[in-house]
Amino acid sequence: MPETLIKVSGIIDRSSASQNPIIAEGLSAILNGDGKLLRPGLLLLSSQFGGALKHNSEKCLSLAAAIEMLHVATLIHDDVIDDSPLRRGQPSVHTSYGKQDAVLIGDFLLSRCFILVSEYSSQEQALALARAISVICSMEIEQNSSRYQADTSIRRYFKKIMGKTALLFSLACYVGAAEAKASSESAARLRRVGYNMGMAFQIIDDILDYTGSAETVRKALGNDFKAGIVTLPLIFALTMDGSGELKKLTVPGQFALADSGRVIALVKESGGIEAARSCAKKYTDRALREISLLPGGAPRDMLEKLTQRLLVRNY
Amino acid sequence: MPETLIKVSGIIDRSSASQNPIIAEGLSAILNGDGKLLRPGLLLLSSQFGGALKHNSEKCLSLAAAIEMLHVATLIHDDVIDDSPLRRGQPSVHTSYGKQDAVLIGDFLLSRCFILVSEYSSQEQALALARAISVICSMEIEQNSSRYQADTSIRRYFKKIMGKTALLFSLACYVGAAEAKASSESAARLRRVGYNMGMAFQIIDDILDYTGSAETVRKALGNDFKAGIVTLPLIFALTMDGSGELKKLTVPGQFALADSGRVIALVKESGGIEAARSCAKKYTDRALREISLLPGGAPRDMLEKLTQRLLVRNY
Repeated sequence: MPETLIKVSGIIDRSSASQNPIIAEGLSAILNGDGKLLRPGLLLLSSQFGGALKHNSEKCLSLAAAIEMLHVATLIHDDVIDDSPLRRGQPSVHTSYGKQDAVLIGDFLLSRCFILVSEYSSQEQALALARAISVICSMEIEQNSSRYQADTSIRRYFKKIMGKTALLFSLACYVGAAEAKASSESAARLRRVGYNMGMAFQIIDDILDYTGSAETVRKALGNDFKAGIVTLPLIFALTMDGSGELKKLTVPGQFALADSGRVIALVKESGGIEAARSCAKKYTDRALREISLLPGGAPRDMLEKLTQRLLVRNY
Repeated sequence: MPETLIKVSGIIDRSSASQNPIIAEGLSAILNGDGKLLRPGLLLLSSQFGGALKHNSEKCLSLAAAIEMLHVATLIHDDVIDDSPLRRGQPSVHTSYGKQDAVLIGDFLLSRCFILVSEYSSQEQALALARAISVICSMEIEQNSSRYQADTSIRRYFKKIMGKTALLFSLACYVGAAEAKASSESAARLRRVGYNMGMAFQIIDDILDYTGSAETVRKALGNDFKAGIVTLPLIFALTMDGSGELKKLTVPGQFALADSGRVIALVKESGGIEAARSCAKKYTDRALREISLLPGGAPRDMLEKLTQRLLVRNY
């Protein structure tokens, strides 16, 4: 991990420190799990497209820490909502401490994120962060209300992953660029880079729920499906479900009862995975194209490398 | 309801508006329940001790709205955690929409609160609000971990209600005074007024769980006890439990199985209610004394009246 991200990690630890042992232990497990600090990394990289903020300044590192804390807070609440047993290779917070404390630990982390933002950010960025949370919550509630609906439209799916992932990627890029006073053209472009990266990243994550092993994706295979979350591979597979077997296995409210091994096999056979892959590639290509139009130099090269490493791989 | 509080209520509605029907309906029920807007009222009253901010200005009304939104967000999460069926005379949010959406609706409201604060507050007050949430969450987690422990010490109880209620009362008074640039002496005094009012208010609320009717307290009688929350009347009653019957009825983890009617009767007979009442009176007297030392005039008279109405009554 680069030195700057190690510093970000230190700020996250200090900023979320608590004398309450339940909070301290609960957060330590998820914060010291193998999170990749992607969003802070994007913020720090994007800040290098403007001259007003050193990417290793206290302010920049603190904003990077805040965006990761916001992300982890939403993960903690997500896991409560989805009843996910694992997160980042560790038992999820609610598995260890119960749902009641997990809700509060998420709230606690969110408030500490706001403290950092209030201390270091301009009013404009503080507003952007607060607005992002509103949108994330709205999208999550929409995801929740469309649980077990196998006929989720592709359009609805894209809207959901925008709120779930692309928004925070895009915000990380934009906050970094804007606080460093990058040109408005570069800031807008970086926002689009983040958006397209986030969309591709989430689609790939959803594909891995069908193709990855629990070891490589660090969460249980078919976990989304069992929780009733309908993602792109299944949506595509259902449109190509000639025999109708997949439709029979995805009865609303009864996903947990279905043979998830059979569902996974059918999604693979139907070509749902390939269709989702080509969709992820479209977003990745858009991200790479936007990156190629940014001012040249080391930050642009690093951003391109990160995108390649993250999105152009076997999945 | 005074005209200014009606305006605050309008700002709360506008600021928490959502196109998502679940959020809109879920919040409408709790926001339009019979909440008394106590915290906004305290903020507006306290702002009248300084000259820099008109109590009916957009800024002051917005901060008052933000503090109520913060309060309601914590209520929504509290009800999830305590599994309370009723809130403000209505079914609680999770009763109507499930715990998953209730967590997200609370997060949504919290984020909208931060948007208002970021828009209208000074950095210092934004920090104070964010810090308050951290403390509230820590205290709630502590309350959660001491659930069903009948031997909760009085000291621990006071610490918990400080985080649960007195902190936000005190913050409302302080934010109003500080934003209006009241003298530092008055601001500090108002903070203490809020603290003492909040402590008395919560003790009275806890007494009403034993003495009030479901109609007057707008929640079920003995609700705290059944959820394992040990409050002052029970703590005092246990210290005076000559026969040992109360101790036998409060076995950790089995409060829900106990005959709550018998527990309530024993708490009343033992003198636990009177002891708690005299404790509430001590805080009320302190609040009134601090108020009497504030600069004289209409705001002070109104604050005194509010305290009398709220805390000096039959309970």
